Amino acid sequence: MASSTPSGAGDGLAKFHSKVDELEEIFIEKLRDAIKIPSISAYPERRKDVFRMGEWVATKFRDVGVEVTLKDLGKQAGTDLDLPPLVLGRYGRDPNKPTLLVYSHYDVQPAAIEDGWKYDPWTLTIEENGRLCGRGTSDDKGPLIGWANMIEAFQKAGVDVPSNLVFCFEGMEETASFGLREALEDEADKFFADVDMVCVTDVVWVSDEQISIPQGLRGILFYILTITGADQDAHSGGFGGQISEPMVDMVNIFSSLVDSGGNILIPGVYDNVQPITNEEYESYQSLDISNNSLLGGTGGRSLHDDQADALVSRWKKPSLSLHRIESASPGAGAVTSITAKVAGKFSIRTVPNMRAEDIDKLVKKHIEDRFHSLGSKNDLHIDCAHQSDWFYEQADHWNYQAAIQATKNVWGKTPALTCEGGSIPIALDFKQVLKKNVLLLPVGRPTDGAHSINALQWCIWLNRKSTTSEKLDKSNYINAVKLYGSYLAEAAVLWRNNQA
Amino acid sequence: MASSTPSGAGDGLAKFHSKVDELEEIFIEKLRDAIKIPSISAYPERRKDVFRMGEWVATKFRDVGVEVTLKDLGKQAGTDLDLPPLVLGRYGRDPNKPTLLVYSHYDVQPAAIEDGWKYDPWTLTIEENGRLCGRGTSDDKGPLIGWANMIEAFQKAGVDVPSNLVFCFEGMEETASFGLREALEDEADKFFADVDMVCVTDVVWVSDEQISIPQGLRGILFYILTITGADQDAHSGGFGGQISEPMVDMVNIFSSLVDSGGNILIPGVYDNVQPITNEEYESYQSLDISNNSLLGGTGGRSLHDDQADALVSRWKKPSLSLHRIESASPGAGAVTSITAKVAGKFSIRTVPNMRAEDIDKLVKKHIEDRFHSLGSKNDLHIDCAHQSDWFYEQADHWNYQAAIQATKNVWGKTPALTCEGGSIPIALDFKQVLKKNVLLLPVGRPTDGAHSINALQWCIWLNRKSTTSEKLDKSNYINAVKLYGSYLAEAAVLWRNNQA
Repeated sequence: MASSTPSGAGDGLAKFHSKVDELEEIFIEKLRDAIKIPSISAYPERRKDVFRMGEWVATKFRDVGVEVTLKDLGKQAGTDLDLPPLVLGRYGRDPNKPTLLVYSHYDVQPAAIEDGWKYDPWTLTIEENGRLCGRGTSDDKGPLIGWANMIEAFQKAGVDVPSNLVFCFEGMEETASFGLREALEDEADKFFADVDMVCVTDVVWVSDEQISIPQGLRGILFYILTITGADQDAHSGGFGGQISEPMVDMVNIFSSLVDSGGNILIPGVYDNVQPITNEEYESYQSLDISNNSLLGGTGGRSLHDDQADALVSRWKKPSLSLHRIESASPGAGAVTSITAKVAGKFSIRTVPNMRAEDIDKLVKKHIEDRFHSLGSKNDLHIDCAHQSDWFYEQADHWNYQAAIQATKNVWGKTPALTCEGGSIPIALDFKQVLKKNVLLLPVGRPTDGAHSINALQWCIWLNRKSTTSEKLDKSNYINAVKLYGSYLAEAAVLWRNNQA
Repeated sequence: MASSTPSGAGDGLAKFHSKVDELEEIFIEKLRDAIKIPSISAYPERRKDVFRMGEWVATKFRDVGVEVTLKDLGKQAGTDLDLPPLVLGRYGRDPNKPTLLVYSHYDVQPAAIEDGWKYDPWTLTIEENGRLCGRGTSDDKGPLIGWANMIEAFQKAGVDVPSNLVFCFEGMEETASFGLREALEDEADKFFADVDMVCVTDVVWVSDEQISIPQGLRGILFYILTITGADQDAHSGGFGGQISEPMVDMVNIFSSLVDSGGNILIPGVYDNVQPITNEEYESYQSLDISNNSLLGGTGGRSLHDDQADALVSRWKKPSLSLHRIESASPGAGAVTSITAKVAGKFSIRTVPNMRAEDIDKLVKKHIEDRFHSLGSKNDLHIDCAHQSDWFYEQADHWNYQAAIQATKNVWGKTPALTCEGGSIPIALDFKQVLKKNVLLLPVGRPTDGAHSINALQWCIWLNRKSTTSEKLDKSNYINAVKLYGSYLAEAAVLWRNNQA
């Protein structure tokens, strides 16, 4: 369907694109400057650098004419740490243009040369093949700066920026997005009141080879099952066979949840799962994804021989993973003991049109029934500790159609419409709070190493030489600027058609 | 059958018994002296105190005329630590007396007042009710010193010690008995060549109320099951449903080993289990054991309503306990990950007449069959990491009959013949190496708190006031001396009858 959308963006876009190419060196210097600041949100001792990075972002956007406000988010719950501000920006208020809310983040994952990085993570290193290496290049400083670059290129090309822009840049994305949801709710009817569409640039292509736009994310229900027998661990010599063992009930219940083929065994779980269409299946089959890429480089054993089946299993079907079974009794340690209390953790990934409350009932009923059938003398407790819904946007919305056309304009290829197996809570937050269409627009590639940490540990284990770093290909960095501009231009046209 | 054995110990025993009572204060002072030395074998920094304690023991036994040798055991494997010596002693070489080998140990479990001890563990504190409190009073300094006290009392009563004695006192019992087995094998035909019988005084009664002598111990087969899928942990959002999960196979296999009623599900495991006799069942029924004592104070939920059934389950039947399932992949930590490699640990307790090699085959076949039936894409590895046989002595041997009669002489009650659910590797070592009857002769009571550690942790959890300490009742300490003397006298008579 994407290919049937005509480009309506006109002449200005060509001028803009060539201006972007002209400014390449300036844009790379800006990224070099940004990479120097180790804005790691996870480490309290780096919090000051996250603040510094927020100021840097505010300055760079003010430089291109954006009105910037720093929204204070107070303290990090349960700590004395100040949360870094939301950098809120506004560019243009033309009632004849749509208003786009852009989300990105200026904090980064931890990194240290000692972890086995190929280069100093805080110095931009450009490899011969054009890879821009450094922490944050791909996630998410490169994509963030691209928006300022875009405004600059339009201005220097003498072309009007085609849409109004509202920016929302966060400094805690890598650390649970503390304070974001509340801030969104607070600003929904104020700073974000006139937003027509949302764009999140914190995703990557489905594979290095396959340009894509994800339209769906799975949801999650995370459970903790606690089974209690004695008051304290017992010696298995002294009491084995005499007292009831919580671990025995636990493995029995766990074994009744999912089989070795990945099929969920809880009755009714699949009832509302939207069937895959032939069109989707065929499109998944034709995606350009290497086998290694399909397995995310984990060396995992695929349950599916066929690429489309593998992708369906992680994008369009629910899954149930058994994470761990932990001894929950204090002082537990003796390896031959009968554990008095065990905690089992598992999660279910959900897809359209599963209803979380239905699933929760089915899960609890199944586990309770199974437990009763055991005739156990132990006590059972089930807790759904965390829950987040699936996310899905129809791609025929003008917001997605604009992005599809823009991708064709810039990369010369129609992007595949894909999904992601994990969840991005921010996407759901924007959708739920603002009730507007939310586009996930990829900038980088999956091998960018966005979260490459503890690399050395892996290398030692695998007996490999370390070659880790985070990178963003120069082509992706520069094309992102063009992509944003094209997207705004296409969106403006489609929005106007839609208004008419 | 015990009650039909006549006491043949004669007059001297009465004199000896009253001399023991006379010397009570001296014996308690000797224990006070011994408790001062924190001979904790588990802590390298306390190793010097274990050596000091070995010297103390040598001195006290030399003081009563025992020829003492310290046998060097070299270094602790894999460390620079010197192993404390075996204290070997000999008293009497009369060819008309039997020769008894006595085993005990002079090291202790860790202890610290900060752990929640009621008193300083290294100062003997005598409570009003006659409890002798301090680390090592019951396990095993009190029982050990009792043998020197016995010789002293015989000497001061002017009565000949009825048997020849060989002592073997160890300093590493609480820390895996490093070096002991090799030393026994080394001395079997030398220092221990003329031994007729063995007595191990490192056990306690079956309950505080029920005087007993254990004649059996269960064996153990300890397994580690490893299941490997990917090279590294994977994100359950990204890959849940797509790749095979080792944890799923693990809980399935674990759930096929034992049910919630404690029944082992591996075909053939019960085939050679010796049936319980009516006589045994009835004797177990009549034992004086409180419900709390029966559960070892753990608060465990019994699988059996009946006392005899509960005791049969831990003494005369095999059991299978599932200890833990651990993530075995390096760097594992994320709670929503798909673990690449899991290790499951379980053990089987064995009883007469199970054969370890048969059980091992049955276990491995069952697990392999089950794994194959799953059609899993993962790899399985089974390892029997540790194995120790069950131990059982016929009570009609004169060594046991002497102990039964001696217990009647001293406590006025026929001891119950019981078993223990755990294993005491030393008992098996002596039996296997020396091929003599090995008696397990209790001195203390099960509530002595022999291994009471981390008490504070438990108290905090259970919200109880701490009242932990190790103790030995004065009556048990003093009666042990009489018991030893009576036992030697009875044994000498029976041995002579047996020789004739």
